[in-house]
Amino acid sequence: MTGVPLTRLLAFVAEDAPFGDVTSDAVLDDRVCSAVLRFREAGIAAGLAEAAALFAHYGVDATLRATDGDRVEAGATVLALEGSVRGVLLVERTALNLVGRMSGIATTTARYAALARAGGQPVRVAATRKTAPGLGLLDKKAVLLGGGDPHRFTLSDGVLIKDNHLALVPIEEAVRRARAFSAYKTVEVEVETADEAVRAARAGADMVLLDNMTPAGVEEALVALASAGLRDRIRVEVSGGITEATIGAYAGLGVDLVSVGALTHSVRSLDLTLEVFGPQQAD
Amino acid sequence: MTGVPLTRLLAFVAEDAPFGDVTSDAVLDDRVCSAVLRFREAGIAAGLAEAAALFAHYGVDATLRATDGDRVEAGATVLALEGSVRGVLLVERTALNLVGRMSGIATTTARYAALARAGGQPVRVAATRKTAPGLGLLDKKAVLLGGGDPHRFTLSDGVLIKDNHLALVPIEEAVRRARAFSAYKTVEVEVETADEAVRAARAGADMVLLDNMTPAGVEEALVALASAGLRDRIRVEVSGGITEATIGAYAGLGVDLVSVGALTHSVRSLDLTLEVFGPQQAD
Amino acid sequence: MTGVPLTRLLAFVAEDAPFGDVTSDAVLDDRVCSAVLRFREAGIAAGLAEAAALFAHYGVDATLRATDGDRVEAGATVLALEGSVRGVLLVERTALNLVGRMSGIATTTARYAALARAGGQPVRVAATRKTAPGLGLLDKKAVLLGGGDPHRFTLSDGVLIKDNHLALVPIEEAVRRARAFSAYKTVEVEVETADEAVRAARAGADMVLLDNMTPAGVEEALVALASAGLRDRIRVEVSGGITEATIGAYAGLGVDLVSVGALTHSVRSLDLTLEVFGPQQAD
Amino acid sequence: MTGVPLTRLLAFVAEDAPFGDVTSDAVLDDRVCSAVLRFREAGIAAGLAEAAALFAHYGVDATLRATDGDRVEAGATVLALEGSVRGVLLVERTALNLVGRMSGIATTTARYAALARAGGQPVRVAATRKTAPGLGLLDKKAVLLGGGDPHRFTLSDGVLIKDNHLALVPIEEAVRRARAFSAYKTVEVEVETADEAVRAARAGADMVLLDNMTPAGVEEALVALASAGLRDRIRVEVSGGITEATIGAYAGLGVDLVSVGALTHSVRSLDLTLEVFGPQQAD
Amino acid sequence: MTGVPLTRLLAFVAEDAPFGDVTSDAVLDDRVCSAVLRFREAGIAAGLAEAAALFAHYGVDATLRATDGDRVEAGATVLALEGSVRGVLLVERTALNLVGRMSGIATTTARYAALARAGGQPVRVAATRKTAPGLGLLDKKAVLLGGGDPHRFTLSDGVLIKDNHLALVPIEEAVRRARAFSAYKTVEVEVETADEAVRAARAGADMVLLDNMTPAGVEEALVALASAGLRDRIRVEVSGGITEATIGAYAGLGVDLVSVGALTHSVRSLDLTLEVFGPQQAD
Amino acid sequence: MTGVPLTRLLAFVAEDAPFGDVTSDAVLDDRVCSAVLRFREAGIAAGLAEAAALFAHYGVDATLRATDGDRVEAGATVLALEGSVRGVLLVERTALNLVGRMSGIATTTARYAALARAGGQPVRVAATRKTAPGLGLLDKKAVLLGGGDPHRFTLSDGVLIKDNHLALVPIEEAVRRARAFSAYKTVEVEVETADEAVRAARAGADMVLLDNMTPAGVEEALVALASAGLRDRIRVEVSGGITEATIGAYAGLGVDLVSVGALTHSVRSLDLTLEVFGPQQAD
Repeated sequence: MTGVPLTRLLAFVAEDAPFGDVTSDAVLDDRVCSAVLRFREAGIAAGLAEAAALFAHYGVDATLRATDGDRVEAGATVLALEGSVRGVLLVERTALNLVGRMSGIATTTARYAALARAGGQPVRVAATRKTAPGLGLLDKKAVLLGGGDPHRFTLSDGVLIKDNHLALVPIEEAVRRARAFSAYKTVEVEVETADEAVRAARAGADMVLLDNMTPAGVEEALVALASAGLRDRIRVEVSGGITEATIGAYAGLGVDLVSVGALTHSVRSLDLTLEVFGPQQAD
Repeated sequence: MTGVPLTRLLAFVAEDAPFGDVTSDAVLDDRVCSAVLRFREAGIAAGLAEAAALFAHYGVDATLRATDGDRVEAGATVLALEGSVRGVLLVERTALNLVGRMSGIATTTARYAALARAGGQPVRVAATRKTAPGLGLLDKKAVLLGGGDPHRFTLSDGVLIKDNHLALVPIEEAVRRARAFSAYKTVEVEVETADEAVRAARAGADMVLLDNMTPAGVEEALVALASAGLRDRIRVEVSGGITEATIGAYAGLGVDLVSVGALTHSVRSLDLTLEVFGPQQAD
Repeated sequence: MTGVPLTRLLAFVAEDAPFGDVTSDAVLDDRVCSAVLRFREAGIAAGLAEAAALFAHYGVDATLRATDGDRVEAGATVLALEGSVRGVLLVERTALNLVGRMSGIATTTARYAALARAGGQPVRVAATRKTAPGLGLLDKKAVLLGGGDPHRFTLSDGVLIKDNHLALVPIEEAVRRARAFSAYKTVEVEVETADEAVRAARAGADMVLLDNMTPAGVEEALVALASAGLRDRIRVEVSGGITEATIGAYAGLGVDLVSVGALTHSVRSLDLTLEVFGPQQAD
Repeated sequence: MTGVPLTRLLAFVAEDAPFGDVTSDAVLDDRVCSAVLRFREAGIAAGLAEAAALFAHYGVDATLRATDGDRVEAGATVLALEGSVRGVLLVERTALNLVGRMSGIATTTARYAALARAGGQPVRVAATRKTAPGLGLLDKKAVLLGGGDPHRFTLSDGVLIKDNHLALVPIEEAVRRARAFSAYKTVEVEVETADEAVRAARAGADMVLLDNMTPAGVEEALVALASAGLRDRIRVEVSGGITEATIGAYAGLGVDLVSVGALTHSVRSLDLTLEVFGPQQAD
Repeated sequence: MTGVPLTRLLAFVAEDAPFGDVTSDAVLDDRVCSAVLRFREAGIAAGLAEAAALFAHYGVDATLRATDGDRVEAGATVLALEGSVRGVLLVERTALNLVGRMSGIATTTARYAALARAGGQPVRVAATRKTAPGLGLLDKKAVLLGGGDPHRFTLSDGVLIKDNHLALVPIEEAVRRARAFSAYKTVEVEVETADEAVRAARAGADMVLLDNMTPAGVEEALVALASAGLRDRIRVEVSGGITEATIGAYAGLGVDLVSVGALTHSVRSLDLTLEVFGPQQAD
Repeated sequence: MTGVPLTRLLAFVAEDAPFGDVTSDAVLDDRVCSAVLRFREAGIAAGLAEAAALFAHYGVDATLRATDGDRVEAGATVLALEGSVRGVLLVERTALNLVGRMSGIATTTARYAALARAGGQPVRVAATRKTAPGLGLLDKKAVLLGGGDPHRFTLSDGVLIKDNHLALVPIEEAVRRARAFSAYKTVEVEVETADEAVRAARAGADMVLLDNMTPAGVEEALVALASAGLRDRIRVEVSGGITEATIGAYAGLGVDLVSVGALTHSVRSLDLTLEVFGPQQAD
């Protein structure tokens, strides 16, 4: 996926240092140093391209030792830096926050994906729009790097007809209006029963979202779709409080996607460190 | 704390709907509805003022049923809305992401703070700059609402002399330079031994950060500071991988602050829901 | 469709008056006036909501006399204004440029749509991404108001596999990769022969774009899709230099969409005027 | 004229690809390619410097084969590209929209200018502020490249006293106030009769705009100015619905400028194409 | 003159309080208070409209007790405030900086203007582009309020041909090119001798700038222009290190304008104070 | 101190040339030239790094002949330029405004600092937040380069309890609340009597600001603090209308800081010039 625009990355640094780094300004002469960014735990790398671009902007040579999307072992160096110690320290925290969050998301996504496919099904794990405010772009990129499906990027991306809409408009009419709005938008309907799933598929929806159902309920919906000869016309997604413990049960039923809000709404940053070497104390 | 500027909040919505909400545009006539934002689990409210400002901008009346900083029970309504269903649905996800993240941080902070003070010590829990990229302002406000200490907001805020600086400049000289830079900046030194702590205090630092020490090491440093008659001249902070399980052991030693990166780098959003009522299906 | 954000509209005025309106500043006392925005030729109104919001921001009461999407007769008033003559004159040109362009696009779209449906087919007219630089949002909204299909808003919206991609990756593999990228993206393939159209449909594409074909070529492709039992699984779009003179021939063949770059790349602004009344010359 | 700032050009791309180009991300490996931007019809080149700067920002080498302002034949290559196929495809549409619109404006301007001077008069063709919303900078630059006069860039640029002002303040007083406001602003008065033209010139205006007059009316005004000995003290502009058919009649009368709103309010983009070569399909 | 856009004013506050006003947040409950902005020395008011808009944005009622451009006595109240003490204190410094600088400029401009006209000449005092970086809009507005001429707002505003240009192009050719560029731009030539002044006027310049000349040199140039019958075709400006002590000598010679860089490059803020009343200490 | 972000510097140029430099566009062919930036009076250099970055952005090679913070003699060259004459002239005024203002501030700061230390005391001169609106970053950097103390950068930086706060909350309680808000914020109290100074120090403030006191009053406060054994626990600042004439009297009393609003609220720009050489007139 295309990188995050540099202007946005620079804004992160500007917010973290509106009047510069007073510690370096006060304490350090500027010197050249070497430094490395290392993973303290294993995980999927994400955000390295962005971190490297940031360091480079501040005149620090940044060499990637891993590529975004790679699985990295604990202790491995992912970025080697060479340049002004002030530049390195100015960017340090922003880079760690960026790589830590994005790698955390990518790693969790990969773990869920592995669990989902443990039974051999070609099911995919998808994210939701439950991201940190304003961080949809970073979070969706991290999900992609972890092997997940990014789902809708924004409200403008595709049509997702939910209970609030269906309280006002019947399924068939809602799908018809969505198609009439634009032929280019994927149309998905969120349903709570097998019957609604069949109605959505029959109305021509591209996808159906089985929300907050038990595995038995999901199975019932899949059977109903198959019986109606509609299973191959529609992609089936399940969602609703699915965890690492329960994802296998859903994935094994033959759905196409399992979406998991926790991938991006409850992120644990990967444990990283930046180590500086080389500049020697003046005599 | 002052609210997050409206322009920033609006940018969150614009990023989530660059070409509007195509589902509402396609499916719904616009109507007036009622809606509520409810907590599905107990926690400390944060971000409600921001969410209310966002809804109000889009013409939806928003009445606070709780104040940021309040402890809210599971099931309680925190915000009551009245207005255009399109406006409500446009802002819904951004508001949930905002309140969910901020309340998650505030709730975790309050839990750590309670654990730290369980032994009766007046110790405080502090955040770090390990936030989601660009979200320092929201995250620090949430920490304050949870009863925590926000620590440095940015690199421009105060002087924190770390190992990378001390590799180049001795403690005494570093503190002297920091004071000479500005009389207005708090000067803190990160140390790893009791001896370094005493040197930092003697050099005139305002604070000392005991990093990655065992409780025994912390105790040794506190004794050394007391023996040198320096304990009341310096504020003592401990940090480094402190968890809910270990915070009590550190807090009981008589330190002033315990800082915890996890408050903001590994956030679990509080579980919330927005429920829409009232607009009736047209005949 | 949701309105264009006010900050964006204000930027238009700021660019047109970086140091204010020197004519009003030099020549006029400020007074209250009445004014009207009138169409000098018939057309579909678009941009009125945006114009009204702009005037209101500068303290001028703006009353809509028509709704965006309405067909308006030549001579009709669409907006009635009451307020400071300086405010009216400051916003005048920006408002006229906005309403003129958007109404021009909406009117042309409606004309093409009428021609396409003249034969009774339910075919839709669609726009492309050939807009004025940076004006995609305004232009797409205008197309919607004119009864057109907005097509992809951006490159992030959906997958459109073109000749440049197919030079590198066979159709079947390209569609497979697109589906694997995300289940939520509409997948369309641009083809030049009936055979390619069948391959794309068989591979599972949602849409096929018959590019620069003659009507006979289009008919051949439709027959081939029908023979293969794929016609109802895929939406068929035609494009490539289609004009008011030729759209009927394509629309009559039974395609789903006809996309027309000229709707937004070669816009004729509707002819409008703003007339000021009422402020009297001082004695 | 100075180029359009890069930040503005980058914003065009960011709006067209907020979450990247999903087609390339899904379908293509990244490879190096060659590409050319070609004119499909003859015209005056404009926007090439901006397009080249955009490609270069995304790491694509861009070599100008024509200079902005040049007349280019149908079929000619104006820009040769070498670099990442993903970079080329990301920027493609924005570059085509930019060059297409600007070259369309420049070409139309040059055509009007040639018609105006067909009779041998040194008359100039000028644009107005009737541009696409927010695109004044691009549109005015294109007019200059086409050999036109850009007229006022903004409301802050110069004083143009129109009917709405003259309804409140007599010509003589309005010109006096304009001069008193600033000695540095060109002062122009829009008039509808020969008598008003003489009054404006006598009051010291720099320019007079004869609005919506017939050629006979214009001639009468020119004679009146000459009789009063004021013709060489004032520049005379005509405007109001002037077309390619009528411009010759006005230009032949000896006016200094003919301004034409259609140059920028009703733009036909020049027909261009971007062709990609060279990256080979993997075996 | 039109006010400074609110978004710009809000940016001033955001820069001064990126994480809020920690003193109020720490120390104060929020209460309602009264406050006044008072001039501690006499001067011309400027910036009051902007200050009032800022307070109003933060929910503080702001009543103007003087109008921008008024002469205000020492001790007079210019703005009365009523509202949240936190809002008042948040905006206080930004408002004082704004009003202090703008009123300082307006007051100095008025003083120079009075000195220039002391001899009864209708000469005007003008500013230059020597402003604080980025503050041209505020500074030029203040000059206008002080009764000065704002001169060119920007490099895009008008043509000013200086020594650096004349080293490359002769006066006559430079003026010809400037006229050919646009009929709408005022053309001024900076000269150093009477002969050059005559050449500039003869070539058709609108204005001539006599730079760094003695009063005798200026007189010589005026005589030369008069002798050539060109004095009434050109506006004459003098500039170059003119002070309050010397302005009278130049103004008395019959020039049209005296421009003074010090008006905006060396500003003394007017002495102001904001006094808070009313909120009572809690028992 | 870290440099001012380039995006901010570019905004200064964009504001000064929204439609380019029409004089160069009209009059000059583009050629290569040499140019120098020279000080016309002696002073402390500041803003050179920023000016060099701006020229470099526009393709002009810029070589520093002095370093920010250096004392420069009258007549000395501080920046040598080589490149497009259009680039040089486009940036000229912005660069002069930037370097002129910043060097003016740095020079004044150094002069005050020398006066303060004339008696051999290690006292420092500090700035305040009385800057030009929005220019805090530039102004504080200039103060640092002149050898001054920047004081609080913003309202978020540190706690400064003033009369308006003390009218509502007693000193002891205010200091307690400030400490409870955050252990990381320097806490300063503004007082008007010796007794209040002692109360602030006893309450644990880091700094006390003796505001608008006579030298005798300051001395009394210092004695009171010493008698109470608190002098070495608190840093003492004086402020309030201190001038070059009076600073020595305060500095000699043994205070730690003297803060002077005039450093940044009433700036005299240093006198600079940019001279262009070398491009020859075409034959």
